Amino acid sequence: MPRREITSFSNPTIKALRSLREKKHRQRERRFLAEGLRLLTDARESGRVPEVLVMAQRRDPHPLIDALESAVEQAGGDVIETTPDILSKITGKDNPQAVAGAFAEWDTGLERIERDTAPIWLVAQALRDPGNLGTMLRTGDAVGAGGLILIDDCADPFGVEAVRASMGAIFTQQLARARWEDFLPWLRGADGSGRGQLVAASLRDAVPFRGAPYTAPCFVMVGNESQGLPLVYEEACDLRVTMPMRGRADSLNAAVAAAVLSYEVLAALD
Amino acid sequence: MPRREITSFSNPTIKALRSLREKKHRQRERRFLAEGLRLLTDARESGRVPEVLVMAQRRDPHPLIDALESAVEQAGGDVIETTPDILSKITGKDNPQAVAGAFAEWDTGLERIERDTAPIWLVAQALRDPGNLGTMLRTGDAVGAGGLILIDDCADPFGVEAVRASMGAIFTQQLARARWEDFLPWLRGADGSGRGQLVAASLRDAVPFRGAPYTAPCFVMVGNESQGLPLVYEEACDLRVTMPMRGRADSLNAAVAAAVLSYEVLAALD
Repeated sequence: MPRREITSFSNPTIKALRSLREKKHRQRERRFLAEGLRLLTDARESGRVPEVLVMAQRRDPHPLIDALESAVEQAGGDVIETTPDILSKITGKDNPQAVAGAFAEWDTGLERIERDTAPIWLVAQALRDPGNLGTMLRTGDAVGAGGLILIDDCADPFGVEAVRASMGAIFTQQLARARWEDFLPWLRGADGSGRGQLVAASLRDAVPFRGAPYTAPCFVMVGNESQGLPLVYEEACDLRVTMPMRGRADSLNAAVAAAVLSYEVLAALD
Repeated sequence: MPRREITSFSNPTIKALRSLREKKHRQRERRFLAEGLRLLTDARESGRVPEVLVMAQRRDPHPLIDALESAVEQAGGDVIETTPDILSKITGKDNPQAVAGAFAEWDTGLERIERDTAPIWLVAQALRDPGNLGTMLRTGDAVGAGGLILIDDCADPFGVEAVRASMGAIFTQQLARARWEDFLPWLRGADGSGRGQLVAASLRDAVPFRGAPYTAPCFVMVGNESQGLPLVYEEACDLRVTMPMRGRADSLNAAVAAAVLSYEVLAALD
């Protein structure tokens, strides 16, 4: 399909793109939005090409935009030029970048995770803040984690805010969603052959996080922003660690805790 | 002033409280909102009592609510009982907690910072995300930092989102706002007598962050979410450190970077 120009807010394709900002439409369509040349280039280089590529009219030319356009056309996707106003409405930002894309969501089954491909995996349990989720993906990329496993009822990792906070890591980190009842047997292996150390910060029966005996593949788990991890989840861990708390609070932001812990695991396993 | 009941949305006190959710009103009034019994109790125990305490009608009785009410009355403040609907409008949350308070902002002059009272201080430069700012306050509390110094044009630390993300640390951490041109001379001391090591993550002329020669009082600085620190700010640092980046990205979320670095400083200085 050749590049086409759309300048009407009421065009059905534009309306469909805008609707992806809402969870119910996103989940029905199983498509999501990502914005910006860097993010879309990360996606392309990770083998993810948008089904629809939207570009601003009168943008500055850029070889990476050309590369994106070629990739989308080769994959049989749709390339649209539109006004900055419409692009702004699609992305929800006052000053949108020159390109945005609508991607098909991919399968997030636990069976797709190959645990031996990375020394660290992040696990989020009932995390409700999409910014925290995206930040965990970004941190996972930084520490060389394989991906993020979402346990129980988490925020949508394909939502606009999570994708933005991930800074492209949504495309490079593996992603799985599972119930705890399915995750734990998967981790342990049906025949007890499963390898993997499940680690969480805890106040119960825990050792100092610095210098703790981490082993790969290490699954670093954090719990819900308000409730923390359920007790039985903590008890199922192979290793419980404490982090210094010198003030009045007894916990860190969930994405911060995951990051501080992951950097310690990285130092131990490196 | 005795406790009084207000059940009208159009009551001027209620309208004034609701307006504090907006930056322009907050800055004109120099008052801000905080919500929840735990937060308000942290405030009270840190010597900060709200000018106006708002409580839900038909709340569950609680000795900490009684203690708050006494403190506000002793300080000559206003105690209001209102409907859950109105409390919801004031806090902007669907399920508000039983209490909220309007506090007078306090002075945030740099000269109030006593650097020798803590081994770690956090410094945020042009941080625009209020959630990141609040998270830095929360992390500061956890690592035993003295407070947070905001350089240049940062988000409002007294905004609803920052206060919420701080989980009470807005009341326990010292807070200062300054221009770089004022901060650096303050740090160094007018006569060169200033003590304090300025540290930032950097890719230039830097040493590994793990095991770097941190000294107290250590000022851990992070830069703007998009731009990072200006080069001259990096060059003014006493110590530049690198953190492992194993993926495609070359940076972490600002609040995450501050936390990972601060926990390393804490381990070194402990």
